[in-house]
Amino acid sequence: MHDLIIVGAGPAGLTASIYAVRYGLDVLLIDILPIGGQISSARLVENYPGFSRISGIELMEKFVEHASDVGVQMKEASVSEVVSISNGFEIVTGSERIPSKAVIIATGAKPKLLGIHGEIEFTGRGVSYCATCDAPFFSGKKVAVIGGGETAITEALVLSDIAKQVTVIHRRNSLRASQILQERAFARDNIDFVWNTVVEEIAGNELVDRIHVRNVISGKKSTISVEGVFIYVGVLPNTDLVDVKKNEQGFIVSNEAMETSVPGIFAAGDCRESLLHQVITAAADGAVAAYSAQKFVRGK
Amino acid sequence: MHDLIIVGAGPAGLTASIYAVRYGLDVLLIDILPIGGQISSARLVENYPGFSRISGIELMEKFVEHASDVGVQMKEASVSEVVSISNGFEIVTGSERIPSKAVIIATGAKPKLLGIHGEIEFTGRGVSYCATCDAPFFSGKKVAVIGGGETAITEALVLSDIAKQVTVIHRRNSLRASQILQERAFARDNIDFVWNTVVEEIAGNELVDRIHVRNVISGKKSTISVEGVFIYVGVLPNTDLVDVKKNEQGFIVSNEAMETSVPGIFAAGDCRESLLHQVITAAADGAVAAYSAQKFVRGK
Repeated sequence: MHDLIIVGAGPAGLTASIYAVRYGLDVLLIDILPIGGQISSARLVENYPGFSRISGIELMEKFVEHASDVGVQMKEASVSEVVSISNGFEIVTGSERIPSKAVIIATGAKPKLLGIHGEIEFTGRGVSYCATCDAPFFSGKKVAVIGGGETAITEALVLSDIAKQVTVIHRRNSLRASQILQERAFARDNIDFVWNTVVEEIAGNELVDRIHVRNVISGKKSTISVEGVFIYVGVLPNTDLVDVKKNEQGFIVSNEAMETSVPGIFAAGDCRESLLHQVITAAADGAVAAYSAQKFVRGK
Repeated sequence: MHDLIIVGAGPAGLTASIYAVRYGLDVLLIDILPIGGQISSARLVENYPGFSRISGIELMEKFVEHASDVGVQMKEASVSEVVSISNGFEIVTGSERIPSKAVIIATGAKPKLLGIHGEIEFTGRGVSYCATCDAPFFSGKKVAVIGGGETAITEALVLSDIAKQVTVIHRRNSLRASQILQERAFARDNIDFVWNTVVEEIAGNELVDRIHVRNVISGKKSTISVEGVFIYVGVLPNTDLVDVKKNEQGFIVSNEAMETSVPGIFAAGDCRESLLHQVITAAADGAVAAYSAQKFVRGK
């Protein structure tokens, strides 16, 4: 039986594994490939202290190398469930039930869908949730970015380097993104903004060619011609696998020790309810979760 | 008037400054030289994710470079007091009173003294709080390390590479240091352990030549010949400059948003009460404090 199983190998899980090994625990880190979490798809990370500019995938490669250097044991598997047993937990994968005294859930989050007609149908045919991955397909074309937060504006900037025109469509009249990103976006000639507006339908033939939008103040409907639609309207935590207390959005509720409502199950990173979801905060969560897990395992 | 003044340029303050600039705040970071905080004197940092092995000073150079790259304004000064004024705060230095709408206290901590006879007298003449700084003076000599925590054992390992013999003197019968460090220390031929023992006096002539110790169980007193005494019995937070709620040890009490008992004053890093004081957690504190400070400054 392992002392600790960590589910999810993003910034939180990898940091937890580094700390757990250093605490002398028998630890197993489980995730499906590619590891690294959502940040792996970020073209540019400028706010993980120590690296002024680095791609998400490069940063996560450094985390993985660090974990390998301290001797973290990693396993490639998809975890469907975490089940309580008499003396701990079983981590259920497609083919195994792996026992452990304690568990850290570091499963992160995934993009939220708009839930409108055309979204699923055109995913991969004009609809995308990752500019870094898909922007090159839209070189010289007109695209829309849906959302006004940090990720939406970061990705709009990425797109504006490649696409002909980027239209940011936001349901409010101001952006939530940080000032520095707002200023950069407002300064770009090929980014324009459509405020107080929601997308009602994504349409086209083989590929997307237009979106139908509605102004939420005037109620006026209109159509915008675009060949790409990049959707950044928030994230959903990957927390279905575990039965602990969660908030309305599904984020795991935990205290400053990363303890959940079930003793022995800890949470770290984007899957837990917190003020700020960043690489640096996820990594710190992982360190604290490992600290708390070793105390739990050793009965301290 | 600045939007935000950050006092202290260690991992917490530097990260807060990077985030604050990215939030578009007019921010000033103040510290005396050399900046970088306590971690700057660590010979080896192996648990800041992304860097498997790096010296404390190199890591902090990277943080400083990162802060410079985003345009953080830094000032060299010693802050004696933070005073509330009608529309914010004044940061009092030797020669100035600098106004700011909000303040982040990231002043860290300093080594705790044993408070015994000979300690002050022999500081720099055999007594040290920094093996990384002073170990070379003790090449081939016998030294004592006082304490049993993470720092004590890390530094005992550093010393054992250079000194002839390292005697770890600890008032309990087991170490608090992480398992990996304990195993490394127990495996060293030239590190021995004196348990349940406190140091009562440091003695010598020009330089330290012995310590007087007492076993706390038997009460038996004895003398150990050493030429160096390295003291690691905890830290004291640098929080005298600010009048906010603190715990018994002087650490600033704050919530998960890094808010202190005074609105507009935030705390981050080793000076605040928290479960774990690490570079990674200090940096995350700094990010969250900057997030909360920009919300405060913008009245959100």
